[in-house]
Amino acid sequence: MDQDRETGTELKPRYDAAGLVTAVVTDNASGEVLMLAHMNEEALAKTIETGIAHFWSRSRGKLWMKGETSGNVLNVVEMRVDCDQDAIWLRAEPVGPACHTGERSCFYRRVVDGRLERD
Amino acid sequence: MDQDRETGTELKPRYDAAGLVTAVVTDNASGEVLMLAHMNEEALAKTIETGIAHFWSRSRGKLWMKGETSGNVLNVVEMRVDCDQDAIWLRAEPVGPACHTGERSCFYRRVVDGRLERD
Repeated sequence: MDQDRETGTELKPRYDAAGLVTAVVTDNASGEVLMLAHMNEEALAKTIETGIAHFWSRSRGKLWMKGETSGNVLNVVEMRVDCDQDAIWLRAEPVGPACHTGERSCFYRRVVDGRLERD
Repeated sequence: MDQDRETGTELKPRYDAAGLVTAVVTDNASGEVLMLAHMNEEALAKTIETGIAHFWSRSRGKLWMKGETSGNVLNVVEMRVDCDQDAIWLRAEPVGPACHTGERSCFYRRVVDGRLERD
């Protein structure tokens, strides 16, 4: 157990073997979970610096400002870190749909009796 | 792109190389993000079957019912899955503090000017 990481005031992200932490984004107004993604050190630094959510795209292997092509950026209202500092929570104001499918949230389906239902 | 995974009604989790999906848990009442954890196929099945959140503990290498020792279980109100089915969102009613530190949420610190502040 890394006590300092849990109780301290220093941001010391615990990156995994691929150099990433998990980031969850919620809509600051509704509380809805919009998306999950990953951040490397650069993405985290850019997010802090600009106030706009940046991630590391694992599929494309590059830094990615969410909304860089669609315009649907996520303006960060608050950033939080979890106990062992391997996860980041962003409360954000989304400019448009957060999901590449055009849905407001990536979590547009409920699991009901083992099947998926749209809202 | 796996269109079927994105638009279909079948729960087809996209497990990573370690056989895991990421799970985010929010408090159904407050909307607060309580914790992030991981699920393998068994943890997901147990969660669906029992209505109580189960995860795969990566550090201990075993199935883990959250609260099995502390009693602070998470009763699942709703389960959702994201577009590419590699993440699960649980809306839950926590019986007690969700964090092993005794905090209500694992995200008990804000990142402010690159430093951490408790609420």
